Amino acid sequence: MNPGDRVRVTRADRTYEGVLLPSSTDDHLVVKLEGGYNVGIDRAEADVERLESDVYEIDGTDATGDDGASEIEFDEDLPTISLISTGGTIASTVDYRTGAVTAQFDAEDVLRAVPDLAGRANYRGRVVTNILSENMDPQIWQELADAVAEEIEAGADGVVVMHGTDTMQYSAAALSFLLETPVPIVFTGSQRSADRPSSDNVMNAVSAVEAAKSDCAEVLVCMHGTESDDVCALHRGTRVRKNHTSRRNAFETVGAEPLGEVDYETEAIDFRRAYQQRDAVDLERATALESDVELLKFTPGMDPAFLDVVEGSAGLIIEGTGLGHVHTDLIPRIEELIDDGTTVIMTSQCLEGRVCDRVYDTGRDLLEAGVIEAGDTLPGTAKVKLMWALEHSDNVEEAMGTSLAGEIQQRSVPWE
Amino acid sequence: MNPGDRVRVTRADRTYEGVLLPSSTDDHLVVKLEGGYNVGIDRAEADVERLESDVYEIDGTDATGDDGASEIEFDEDLPTISLISTGGTIASTVDYRTGAVTAQFDAEDVLRAVPDLAGRANYRGRVVTNILSENMDPQIWQELADAVAEEIEAGADGVVVMHGTDTMQYSAAALSFLLETPVPIVFTGSQRSADRPSSDNVMNAVSAVEAAKSDCAEVLVCMHGTESDDVCALHRGTRVRKNHTSRRNAFETVGAEPLGEVDYETEAIDFRRAYQQRDAVDLERATALESDVELLKFTPGMDPAFLDVVEGSAGLIIEGTGLGHVHTDLIPRIEELIDDGTTVIMTSQCLEGRVCDRVYDTGRDLLEAGVIEAGDTLPGTAKVKLMWALEHSDNVEEAMGTSLAGEIQQRSVPWE
Repeated sequence: MNPGDRVRVTRADRTYEGVLLPSSTDDHLVVKLEGGYNVGIDRAEADVERLESDVYEIDGTDATGDDGASEIEFDEDLPTISLISTGGTIASTVDYRTGAVTAQFDAEDVLRAVPDLAGRANYRGRVVTNILSENMDPQIWQELADAVAEEIEAGADGVVVMHGTDTMQYSAAALSFLLETPVPIVFTGSQRSADRPSSDNVMNAVSAVEAAKSDCAEVLVCMHGTESDDVCALHRGTRVRKNHTSRRNAFETVGAEPLGEVDYETEAIDFRRAYQQRDAVDLERATALESDVELLKFTPGMDPAFLDVVEGSAGLIIEGTGLGHVHTDLIPRIEELIDDGTTVIMTSQCLEGRVCDRVYDTGRDLLEAGVIEAGDTLPGTAKVKLMWALEHSDNVEEAMGTSLAGEIQQRSVPWE
Repeated sequence: MNPGDRVRVTRADRTYEGVLLPSSTDDHLVVKLEGGYNVGIDRAEADVERLESDVYEIDGTDATGDDGASEIEFDEDLPTISLISTGGTIASTVDYRTGAVTAQFDAEDVLRAVPDLAGRANYRGRVVTNILSENMDPQIWQELADAVAEEIEAGADGVVVMHGTDTMQYSAAALSFLLETPVPIVFTGSQRSADRPSSDNVMNAVSAVEAAKSDCAEVLVCMHGTESDDVCALHRGTRVRKNHTSRRNAFETVGAEPLGEVDYETEAIDFRRAYQQRDAVDLERATALESDVELLKFTPGMDPAFLDVVEGSAGLIIEGTGLGHVHTDLIPRIEELIDDGTTVIMTSQCLEGRVCDRVYDTGRDLLEAGVIEAGDTLPGTAKVKLMWALEHSDNVEEAMGTSLAGEIQQRSVPWE
């Protein structure tokens, strides 16, 4: 029995008929029902019967040859928005963690799940992957960047990426460096799955589509801006952070106001800060990331052996204390790593404010050892940026100290 | 030439006479001048001549047999506050990073540096260590707890701990678990050294002394509450975080308002939340910390080899994503560590909000592997608490899920 087969599943006196979809866990079957909904079914207690083989090819296009373009009537007065799924919850009617995001993800699937999207745009649908967002990695960031670039080349006026919230900030940062974009690329997701009364999926999806129609050609994260259903905040992809485990307004722009917000009722978008206009640049796609980059957070009592793991790695981001410090006993080992070819970048676990290693002895020793400062770049963003810079920059130190996608915000420490 | 010797130092046509003090760096000499000020002098360019040996014993009491009690007239109407130095800047007239905190730290030293403290209390002075705060470790936390306990036993009505800001939150958390206290224990420090016009040292020191005189018998952090010189915020030691690298109001209580604030002008203290009253408990001092506890922050693309470093360790704090997740490929290795005897605790890099691993597959798998949840305990606080719990708790899982010193604040996830 393979994904793509038409199956009949019986469990606890209920019978489901539909197409078997890829599941992210071995425990659950995911079946796309005739009506378009997906169900996750406990595999251990289910009887499965194959009715027909290979009804769908599970690769983003189905057996009918559908290329993802909407079968719904095309309205030439509306922009075309591409909806890209990576495993998020928005188009799902059951908990996405059980694998219930449809791999056959076309415009009909989305409109069925979120009818409020109808009439706002012409839609294209596309699946890049179907994983838990904690399982994202640099390889998938590149595949996602490829998919987004192809959608833009195919004529999308904006792209919405549906993504699990756990690592959305890392993926948004990755696309910020991998792509120069003439159109908005808007990440959105859901903190509460669609089956909960308090789900944020509809408002986030609708607001993300509105943002994707705007003239802000940046990589954005669009999520609830308050605890109410009034506005979604638009965060720059390199400055955003999931700052709460469970609240719907978990995402915040660190150290500044969000770039803007979408009013859910009026659909008005209010930008508060400067941004890159639509069509200001041509589409460009960086072709590689150096994935051998680690991030290490220093805390008192840290075992220096963590640095041994980095030996031979291309890069290391340190999350230091304060202005960018670690225990002074670690500095000689860090210098060895640098002499051995590892690029070492300093960021701060404070999250807000620049690192500034000229001020104190420990910092000066780190600079002398060859550590590079990343300004006020967030540690996770610095990790992604270094992966990019090691492949695409002639001068990594200069690149890490320069704001390339809004990632450096504070120009100096306050006393300067 | 040793600390405690009286020396004459000549550098660039200037001559300094005084007592050589311990320096935190090899590059600088620190000399306590006759007038009481300390200077840091570049060793490479200095000529040093010994005038007299062992004028002071460098151990917290001087050669005169002074036990740290103030020689200033005792005012029986005032409380007695113990001022404990660990290497902070407050009583120093030069940059504390160059080692310029006096090791002979008596009431006169403090009053000379911060005259505004006079008349507010009778003071005792004591030096526990003289290091950069990034060099703090569990051993010094225990020495600090011993010193604080001794001061309270000796009759201090409150204790002020002067500490570098980089790791103040970790030390404050450590004392929160190591001590049951009948009096306030107030950490303070300085984000700008005393030689800068914008230094915060005087206001922080004065406010900390006022807080130490209050009836809040908890471990607090007292630092600027705003960017102005109006109020200092009082943060609970287990919930505070340095959230900015350089601002004077860098410290914040995570996920709540501070416990209270001190008005610098009126000296009024306004508590906004419940706290433990003075003399509500007797002094108790835990006698050990398990220092073999590591903290590991998970980010996408992390090398699983970091987990190998933890093999055989007593404990591991994971800073996971969202509700408490890591890449699912890491879970079998984490389970091996647990089976091998390592206690593994889950916290969230979101910082705000509880971990809740019952919700999603990855979390349930982690719980099945034996990972213990720490509620909304901050990751750094969880590290310190686990060091304490492994020595002092019969049931570590229960201890980590229970608020013992205000470290767990949010009782449930919002949808419950």
